[in-house]
Amino acid sequence: MAKQLSGAGLRGQVAGKTALSTVGVSGSGLTYRGYDVKDLANNCQFEEVAYLILKGKLPNQRELSAYKKTLQSLRSLPQPLKEVLERIPKDAHPMDVLRTGCSMLGNLEGEANFDQQQDVTERMLAAFPGIICYWYRFTHDGIRIDENTDDDSIGGHFLHLLRGEKPSQLHEDVMHVSLILYAEHEFNASTFTARVCASTLSDMHSCITGAIGSLRGPLHGGANEAAMEMIEGFTSPEHAEKEMMAKLERKEKIMGFGHAVYSDSDPRNEIIKQWSKKLSEDVGDDTLYAVSERCEEVMWREKKLFCNADFFHASAYNFMDIPTKLFTPIFVMSRLTGWAAHVMEQRADNRIIRPSAEYTGEELRPVPPMSERD
Amino acid sequence: MAKQLSGAGLRGQVAGKTALSTVGVSGSGLTYRGYDVKDLANNCQFEEVAYLILKGKLPNQRELSAYKKTLQSLRSLPQPLKEVLERIPKDAHPMDVLRTGCSMLGNLEGEANFDQQQDVTERMLAAFPGIICYWYRFTHDGIRIDENTDDDSIGGHFLHLLRGEKPSQLHEDVMHVSLILYAEHEFNASTFTARVCASTLSDMHSCITGAIGSLRGPLHGGANEAAMEMIEGFTSPEHAEKEMMAKLERKEKIMGFGHAVYSDSDPRNEIIKQWSKKLSEDVGDDTLYAVSERCEEVMWREKKLFCNADFFHASAYNFMDIPTKLFTPIFVMSRLTGWAAHVMEQRADNRIIRPSAEYTGEELRPVPPMSERD
Repeated sequence: MAKQLSGAGLRGQVAGKTALSTVGVSGSGLTYRGYDVKDLANNCQFEEVAYLILKGKLPNQRELSAYKKTLQSLRSLPQPLKEVLERIPKDAHPMDVLRTGCSMLGNLEGEANFDQQQDVTERMLAAFPGIICYWYRFTHDGIRIDENTDDDSIGGHFLHLLRGEKPSQLHEDVMHVSLILYAEHEFNASTFTARVCASTLSDMHSCITGAIGSLRGPLHGGANEAAMEMIEGFTSPEHAEKEMMAKLERKEKIMGFGHAVYSDSDPRNEIIKQWSKKLSEDVGDDTLYAVSERCEEVMWREKKLFCNADFFHASAYNFMDIPTKLFTPIFVMSRLTGWAAHVMEQRADNRIIRPSAEYTGEELRPVPPMSERD
Repeated sequence: MAKQLSGAGLRGQVAGKTALSTVGVSGSGLTYRGYDVKDLANNCQFEEVAYLILKGKLPNQRELSAYKKTLQSLRSLPQPLKEVLERIPKDAHPMDVLRTGCSMLGNLEGEANFDQQQDVTERMLAAFPGIICYWYRFTHDGIRIDENTDDDSIGGHFLHLLRGEKPSQLHEDVMHVSLILYAEHEFNASTFTARVCASTLSDMHSCITGAIGSLRGPLHGGANEAAMEMIEGFTSPEHAEKEMMAKLERKEKIMGFGHAVYSDSDPRNEIIKQWSKKLSEDVGDDTLYAVSERCEEVMWREKKLFCNADFFHASAYNFMDIPTKLFTPIFVMSRLTGWAAHVMEQRADNRIIRPSAEYTGEELRPVPPMSERD
């Protein structure tokens, strides 16, 4: 007899073990392998955190330099992959582009066995910015970019490909912080997708392709895009307040606030908020940051709902001139580290994930002849 | 505090509700919406069962004719999809081809909203045989096939595309049976992947792409391929017996026997076994079927392990001259019905699937400066 679980969606149910992160332990924390995400965001580059998540320790200077050099060497996209990207229409969902690009990469450079799991992950980390930017620039600007740059970091490389010029130090710094904040988050739905797939002992590309498909869902990734669409419609803090109150009155869902696991605050918010403020000052903005702060005040005052990681990401990315529809693909470039590390962890102590279902359907009945069917 | 589950892999844990099927209830049964799979396999075409699973009732003659006509009308592949398939190498894993083809289709003909869920599913049902055969024939035979045929059924259409000629009635009948047997199987790992993805409210193509990636794993799909690779090495029943005994002695894993849920027998085995016998007689085989039967006897005598659905599928497909590496893609053409129906069911009563994890990692620790790292 299958055991009945208390909640839908496996909420609060332990579905496996992880040494990668804790979410919401003692109220509001987020740790990656024992390090507080704030500590990491304040002191590390994204590549250090990727190394930590994927290889289990913070790299020393020699290891970090070698790791970055490896990642830099893996940026070229195979010609057939570029030809596939050129055949994806301009109006496609950018997450579908990345899903297809990742899947195609698996056809061209598959993971032949699990000994290659670190290598194929590094290849994806290096190639994903190129995949999304190659498609974006080809379909939106009509040019075939060179997907190689000499930029030192994944975030800088992405901005360079997107804009065709090297980003400022401030922008590169923000990308480090942003990618660190999104890198890992325990058994969220996309990560759990990757683990279920990994539990059949499938290949890394299948696991990551599946995770991208799950992150695409509006209940998971995409909240920063939705937040951006909202705040860009507000012309002043007063206008924001009026509109937010009206939305609350109409019981509309407002994206970028609250969290399924955190109860008091999202530890990532205070970090990205600081950087959004810096960027606001840098670009001489007098509206968007103030609007965002007012939204935060209203939601707390009216609903005791706090900003999650996504809300100030919206303005931060916007200040860096990143097109809104590329917000969630940036999330992928970062979370790829967590997904791949969870796949490796699942493989190391695997049992196929195969739950049961409560049956609510018809009792046993005979197949009626065609002539007797309604 | 998260609740501890008793088993790894969520085994025996209820992770949701379904009205689509029962597996192993009262010992060994498999029912789709209340109908025994044997009853369906003996009395229905695959399209009737697809209609049943996806729309909730067995079609009458008018509904079935209209459904088949619709599916026939949806077989043409978009030109950019064909161009993508042409860029996938001959030595790619056919499941990766299908995963990429499905993902690409989502870029070209995405599901704009959930009102389209039946339409996009019908499109995939109609197009998947073309996707796999177009790639297979292009890369293996160097020809661009016409992906349209006037065949009445999905199974007949597939065989026609694969061979370039209309299949015999016997072969078309076997395809109906085979596709019916593989159509649906409750919360197996690929279906659960599709449901986790669906729970983020992602699109149908993401859910199916993810499910294909999970079915690709050697612990899930692919057992019939492994069984084929084994039995084609046996030259006689006596040789099979000797080799099987040696494998058992060496404690090698033998694919195609036993099941995670069924305890006494797999109800699908006796059906496909009958058809494998018919095909054996049809082709004048004097080895493969006898070898297969001997394997069954040895495994039962020595280990009390029964053949599952995959074992006699191996010889049946082989008698129909289907290349071994296309066995699992046929599974996809069939299971697509169950996956899509589970996606629809998840959407109709959704909560995001987001379990918890037991943390086994490092305690909280400060980030050391670069110079102090090992």
